[in-house]
Amino acid sequence: MAHLLSTSCSLKLSTSCRSYPQALNGCPKTCSTFFTLQTSKSSFRRLVFRGEIPKRSFIVQAAAVPVTQEAPTQSSSNSHQTSGEPSKPRRVMVIGGDGYCGWATALHLSNKGYEVAIVDSLIRRLFDHQLGLDSLTPISSIHNRLRCWKSLTGKTIELHIGDICDFEFLSETFKSFEPDAVVHFGEQRSAPYSMIDRSRAVFTQHNNVIGTLNVLFAIKEFVEQCHLVKLGTMGEYGTPNIDIEEGYITITHNGRTDTLPYPKQASSFYHLSKVHDSNNIAFTCKAWGIRATDLNQGVVYGVRTDETEMHEELCNRFDYDGVFGTALNRFCVQAAVGHPLTVYGKGGQVRGNDLVPESILNYVEFLEHSEIGRFSLTSLCFTFTVDQGYLDIRDTVQCVELAIANPARPGEFRVFNQFTEQFSVNELASLVTKAGEKLGLDVKTISVPNPRVEAEEHYYNAKHTKLIELGLKPHLLSDSLLDSLLNFAIKFKDRVDAKQIMPDVSWRKIGVKPKTVAA
Amino acid sequence: MAHLLSTSCSLKLSTSCRSYPQALNGCPKTCSTFFTLQTSKSSFRRLVFRGEIPKRSFIVQAAAVPVTQEAPTQSSSNSHQTSGEPSKPRRVMVIGGDGYCGWATALHLSNKGYEVAIVDSLIRRLFDHQLGLDSLTPISSIHNRLRCWKSLTGKTIELHIGDICDFEFLSETFKSFEPDAVVHFGEQRSAPYSMIDRSRAVFTQHNNVIGTLNVLFAIKEFVEQCHLVKLGTMGEYGTPNIDIEEGYITITHNGRTDTLPYPKQASSFYHLSKVHDSNNIAFTCKAWGIRATDLNQGVVYGVRTDETEMHEELCNRFDYDGVFGTALNRFCVQAAVGHPLTVYGKGGQVRGNDLVPESILNYVEFLEHSEIGRFSLTSLCFTFTVDQGYLDIRDTVQCVELAIANPARPGEFRVFNQFTEQFSVNELASLVTKAGEKLGLDVKTISVPNPRVEAEEHYYNAKHTKLIELGLKPHLLSDSLLDSLLNFAIKFKDRVDAKQIMPDVSWRKIGVKPKTVAA
Repeated sequence: MAHLLSTSCSLKLSTSCRSYPQALNGCPKTCSTFFTLQTSKSSFRRLVFRGEIPKRSFIVQAAAVPVTQEAPTQSSSNSHQTSGEPSKPRRVMVIGGDGYCGWATALHLSNKGYEVAIVDSLIRRLFDHQLGLDSLTPISSIHNRLRCWKSLTGKTIELHIGDICDFEFLSETFKSFEPDAVVHFGEQRSAPYSMIDRSRAVFTQHNNVIGTLNVLFAIKEFVEQCHLVKLGTMGEYGTPNIDIEEGYITITHNGRTDTLPYPKQASSFYHLSKVHDSNNIAFTCKAWGIRATDLNQGVVYGVRTDETEMHEELCNRFDYDGVFGTALNRFCVQAAVGHPLTVYGKGGQVRGNDLVPESILNYVEFLEHSEIGRFSLTSLCFTFTVDQGYLDIRDTVQCVELAIANPARPGEFRVFNQFTEQFSVNELASLVTKAGEKLGLDVKTISVPNPRVEAEEHYYNAKHTKLIELGLKPHLLSDSLLDSLLNFAIKFKDRVDAKQIMPDVSWRKIGVKPKTVAA
Repeated sequence: MAHLLSTSCSLKLSTSCRSYPQALNGCPKTCSTFFTLQTSKSSFRRLVFRGEIPKRSFIVQAAAVPVTQEAPTQSSSNSHQTSGEPSKPRRVMVIGGDGYCGWATALHLSNKGYEVAIVDSLIRRLFDHQLGLDSLTPISSIHNRLRCWKSLTGKTIELHIGDICDFEFLSETFKSFEPDAVVHFGEQRSAPYSMIDRSRAVFTQHNNVIGTLNVLFAIKEFVEQCHLVKLGTMGEYGTPNIDIEEGYITITHNGRTDTLPYPKQASSFYHLSKVHDSNNIAFTCKAWGIRATDLNQGVVYGVRTDETEMHEELCNRFDYDGVFGTALNRFCVQAAVGHPLTVYGKGGQVRGNDLVPESILNYVEFLEHSEIGRFSLTSLCFTFTVDQGYLDIRDTVQCVELAIANPARPGEFRVFNQFTEQFSVNELASLVTKAGEKLGLDVKTISVPNPRVEAEEHYYNAKHTKLIELGLKPHLLSDSLLDSLLNFAIKFKDRVDAKQIMPDVSWRKIGVKPKTVAA
């Protein structure tokens, strides 16, 4: 399991008044960081970090810090949490808090007055190194991110670096932080990644399933009232020919009726791992009284949230590559650099089919005569997720906050479908094309063979009312939002790496030999 | 993952004409065995075996052997396989072929003329050591079993000892044997075992899910036409309030109709692992064209098959303990030794409820005044599986043979519910009581608190017609069979170990600390 980061350490970042070498751009430059590492039984690798030499089992608590910028006040009107209501959840552990959704969520919750601890192995950053990928946006180290956040707001976010598959490490985080809620983003979250080769398929299922089992055991053992908010995916449902409900469906069969878990038809080893998680969590709710919310999230787009735009050091990642890039983000990058939008097969997985896709031959001809001829045809076989629900990342953080503020009851396994709008791939391409034209971009759409195994035209109608009932105010994909996304992509277009618009990750061709994707 | 056997080796047993120290009782004593070990990347531990010193990567092919007993002819009238039909599957790999169902199946298939290779890590025997358990019947080593089989029948069963979670090992078995069908029993198969402690829960899901993933990849890579016959469990379905269909259910919802995977509600980490497997296999059938049959098996009872009764060296295991013992086997042992039949809670999980269970207090009083007072109350909290379908082990081997002889089509994920009769726990207890009375036994039934989390009274009606349609001729649980089972238990009652009628494996009390069950 070469992909598995086996190093575990817990950090509490403390700032004092010495200067430190890596000055933050615009952040106070007078504070430095002491930190210590707690290692578990797993093999220990020293983290490369300027400053102190790691020591075993010693935690330096945060000290007072000179704040050069006024910290925002405790919470906005949306907050469901105030310090005057001690019965409400206050302490939230964000597993995977250095990732795309996790980072935005950790900052949002901290900003809303929650005590936040990030638990992360940082393996997502390792994946980028291994696959030769990079975020479109420059992102800071988690250490610098947290220092900046503290400098800007005065708020400390605890940091525990380690692998939740290592139960000794996870136990320590639970015992020391004692969360009221755990938001679990800490999984390998890419369908194409899980389909690269056997070892990545196995890694994905092991990492996700065992990590979640460990979280369930940690809750049972150490904080049994803790509410688990688990990120699932709309892709768990597949594309049934009937309406998709939120987690359960009432079935009348041979004269009898029961409400049962909604049948799942996941279509990658990643999506399957989420189905496994959902089944495991449902069982522990029933057997142990765990309280859990499964957020079946759609495809997230956008990069800015209220908190990440406070400072460029807080900037979130923006993945446009074929492995981790989500569909709309990737379209915007393609449009920004003059790359045609690549639609798989017919691209009409939802009812509408506005665009008539061009043929492959036309596309090859286009490539030969275009400035972007450096992209090979195979390099364009990147993947659209089969999820057809979409949401703005600002709604991701809002949904998670709503779930935390309105916890599931003990023993309840609650399922929310977390998306705000449904689009077909063609509809998305059409929206990006129109928005691009407004910005003077000449946006083309082409069709390439679909490397996934999926129905290209199917009925799709998924319910998503429960989060609205809890108070979700969606940010819809209006033209202005698209402009903003597109403008963002244009801003960083010089950082676009053609090699990342890759790979030939194929659902059918996945083999047993370890594969280096971007050579 | 201390439970995981990481040693892998491939054996082809050869017999020559020297004498060897472990003489088989009644088997020819003039042949000795040479074998070699192939080790994979996993750490190598030398197997304790009298004879040759293991050498790396060297296989001795079977030599001629003096057979002192006439080998049975190729096949019986039930056989679906003759050497004259080369298009039919001939080469069958039995993963887990040293276990309870696996051993009986391997012999049965060999007897029917199939070329059989057993792949097994032998970890089931290690579990017995670790938990202080033993089969009621004395069982021989796999090496002696196979030698005896060859001596009796002239048939060679290949043996590959290793862990299917080790893909390097598994690859070698596939490349060398090139199976037409793989029967996959190679999983941790006890619900209570998976609920002992966290590490066993994690082991069960890792071992079962990753092992099956590896099998799927091996089929795709090396023998893509190979038919996977996978052992699932009726417990995957849970106890819905509607009829249980065979794998799929047609649902009409909001005016639209689709046939979808039957919703699953598994109730232990073991049962969940089988659900995960089913979902993974279904996906690979769709994505890769794998041909698979998922046998959702009920609770198996009995020990004798036509082949295992040929010689005591071939005797199958008979588990009566609280971890691996199946319900009816355990009842018979209890009756044989004068132990009351222990029914959980109301014991009426199916419609009928013939027996009025005695109260716990009555039972404590009974214990105090009985000869078996040495059994503590807690020691009686052993577990009935929540499966309510039952079948004779002779039908297990028949069903597997039917599935192999009538393979699934490429891309088909076929689900058969593999049981022949439905009983409630009380009905079983009643049957054993009546049969015991015929043998002069005084059989009592008592009720103990249910350590499982399950509905004690529920609707249960599961379909099981597909195997019948393929030709299954069930052995029903008639009184004579029960007598036979009971008589068998009585024969070995001196081997009953009271400590095995244990443990306090509780669905609710499972914790994170590693547990030694039978102290």
